[in-house]
Amino acid sequence: MSSNPIITFTSDFGSREQYVGAVKGVLLSSCPSAVIVDISHDIGAHDLLEASFVLSNAYPFYPPRTVHLVVVDPTVGSSRRPLVAIGENAIFVAPDNGVLSLVYAREPEIRVLAIDAEHYFRKPASPTFHARDVFAPVAAALAKGVDPLTFGPQIKDYVRFALPAVRKAGDKALEGIVLHIDRFGNVITNITPGDLGTVGPDAKPRVFKVNGKPISSHRRYYAESNVDELFSLVGSSGYFEISALRKPAARLLEAKRGIKVELETT
Amino acid sequence: MSSNPIITFTSDFGSREQYVGAVKGVLLSSCPSAVIVDISHDIGAHDLLEASFVLSNAYPFYPPRTVHLVVVDPTVGSSRRPLVAIGENAIFVAPDNGVLSLVYAREPEIRVLAIDAEHYFRKPASPTFHARDVFAPVAAALAKGVDPLTFGPQIKDYVRFALPAVRKAGDKALEGIVLHIDRFGNVITNITPGDLGTVGPDAKPRVFKVNGKPISSHRRYYAESNVDELFSLVGSSGYFEISALRKPAARLLEAKRGIKVELETT
Amino acid sequence: MSSNPIITFTSDFGSREQYVGAVKGVLLSSCPSAVIVDISHDIGAHDLLEASFVLSNAYPFYPPRTVHLVVVDPTVGSSRRPLVAIGENAIFVAPDNGVLSLVYAREPEIRVLAIDAEHYFRKPASPTFHARDVFAPVAAALAKGVDPLTFGPQIKDYVRFALPAVRKAGDKALEGIVLHIDRFGNVITNITPGDLGTVGPDAKPRVFKVNGKPISSHRRYYAESNVDELFSLVGSSGYFEISALRKPAARLLEAKRGIKVELETT
Repeated sequence: MSSNPIITFTSDFGSREQYVGAVKGVLLSSCPSAVIVDISHDIGAHDLLEASFVLSNAYPFYPPRTVHLVVVDPTVGSSRRPLVAIGENAIFVAPDNGVLSLVYAREPEIRVLAIDAEHYFRKPASPTFHARDVFAPVAAALAKGVDPLTFGPQIKDYVRFALPAVRKAGDKALEGIVLHIDRFGNVITNITPGDLGTVGPDAKPRVFKVNGKPISSHRRYYAESNVDELFSLVGSSGYFEISALRKPAARLLEAKRGIKVELETT
Repeated sequence: MSSNPIITFTSDFGSREQYVGAVKGVLLSSCPSAVIVDISHDIGAHDLLEASFVLSNAYPFYPPRTVHLVVVDPTVGSSRRPLVAIGENAIFVAPDNGVLSLVYAREPEIRVLAIDAEHYFRKPASPTFHARDVFAPVAAALAKGVDPLTFGPQIKDYVRFALPAVRKAGDKALEGIVLHIDRFGNVITNITPGDLGTVGPDAKPRVFKVNGKPISSHRRYYAESNVDELFSLVGSSGYFEISALRKPAARLLEAKRGIKVELETT
Repeated sequence: MSSNPIITFTSDFGSREQYVGAVKGVLLSSCPSAVIVDISHDIGAHDLLEASFVLSNAYPFYPPRTVHLVVVDPTVGSSRRPLVAIGENAIFVAPDNGVLSLVYAREPEIRVLAIDAEHYFRKPASPTFHARDVFAPVAAALAKGVDPLTFGPQIKDYVRFALPAVRKAGDKALEGIVLHIDRFGNVITNITPGDLGTVGPDAKPRVFKVNGKPISSHRRYYAESNVDELFSLVGSSGYFEISALRKPAARLLEAKRGIKVELETT
């Protein structure tokens, strides 16, 4: 059985241009045995939150020691630091701009290093394409087995954006936000079944409200619903989401990422 | 020469979110030597016919024993069964919702099993993401060489949707439908040169009609045509298609999938 | 460490249909150890210049002996020849329609062969899908180590389109064109810092003009700029490009590929 090292790759580079292909060439030139897996390259341009959301819901399923290369990097070329982050079962290579925020939330014991091992970088490094010239060579070296602790000093002041928080809103209510809208138009909130515990030990969802529209059906899976009904369920990443059978709930609700979601409980 | 097992993956998950990446993590965690090949993840949401069409035109080109994972699954979580289907040179893992219909049409000797070997599944399996929690672990086990016959009992009542049939329409005419419109705007019908035999041993295409518009040029390849001409040819999957040189024939004909195509023969 | 052969694949096939998947099946059937890397399949339909641009900016980063399969092929099936081109560190398989023009520009010592070794082709070869039936089998044979010189006679009259040239336009000015607009809306010109030498040894950019709009800020990297400012920088492929911080410069300038770019120098 092969145990070739795995490098996943997440970016906002799109699939049309040379950017992804050039990075993979650098990875394979340095680590020919690497198995490169695309998570997504269709992250919205400069959308750090989306990249963080997508990555944080994919990386837990990879084998231990997988290297996750994540480049959404609007301030490439500036003094923002390149990072190696060492989680329990995964290693991350990314710019220090908050793109790992949802990884930090899942990995309480993470060690974050500011890369100063510049001898790995391609020279001269283009100030506009660190994915190719800075991050890829580091990811390849990690995949080849270089000790991650050797890439630079550990830091504590890495950038971490404040994550949208679920809060109590009255006696029997929670307030959260829309975290993501997926390809199927499912409206994924930041509220989890665990959050119900803050209302009471037996609290259950009664009515979600999105843009003033109430959703009072609760289902276990999509096809359990009736046609044309909006309903909530617990999605595959553990968040409550609002869906509609074979229709984009986001359009029915005119929901956009970031808007408020209310949940009245029993 | 490596003989790493191959798993192809076809879905309607799109390339923006974590869904494809999470499935690949599960595949590689269970079968690290797997070579994963994407057929398409841009199948229209819930479009079983399109998935069936795309898969059936790609899988015959893969080496024997390739495992084909196909997840377009609008009724995920319901009682629809998960399947393993054993063809002559290929193994399929898919929900029992008709998505394999065009595979069944190519593989008369196929054996279809309803998976009951739940010890392969991830626990707890999300009722909305069986690709990750049910189908991927089974595909990985097959790639590792587990005997496909051990996954469950053989069934005969698997779901198979009625395929659009080509029928005789008068003495010297056939009637079919538009099966697919591709990226280039080629209008792919369900009529094959073999169907001409039902009209007569020497029958040849005379005029195709789509939306009332006649197409009386017949070519062997695209660039054999004159600019601005609509013409028919036999496409790479063996079906007659209507094309226009460097223009989307579908737009010129206002053709959509499913509409009628008439063919008058000599 | 694995040294599995690498095949990159660039096309205008899109990611929705069976075309890419079928080609990969042929590659893996013939060369099971191949590592297949997608450069792009979202090249504009029939857009030879875009394919040439994208490939020429990605292939230099791959290990020596990588095989680059490039299929944008509007005249597939006609008498246009299939080619193997042997560069210094890379081998190319492509139709003879100019799609390699920017590769020829980078590889002065390239040897180009017209493939006549038809015993590699799939039979019968579809006249509309040479990627699958002609080019893929040849690419796989090359990946397996077959001597590239055995595929056919060397030719000199291969198709090479005239590349847009940068020219002097007065004493202290250059004139070029927009070569590409990328996902971020960056306007990539065909002018390089090297072209400044034709104006004078110390010439530096003073003002770019695109669609009559002057751009007089010059930056090293995107985030060095002020919000809402248009600026030039030297992009990662070595060309001057016009950008705007987190905004698509192409939209602000109403720039399209092929339009004129003026540069007044110091």
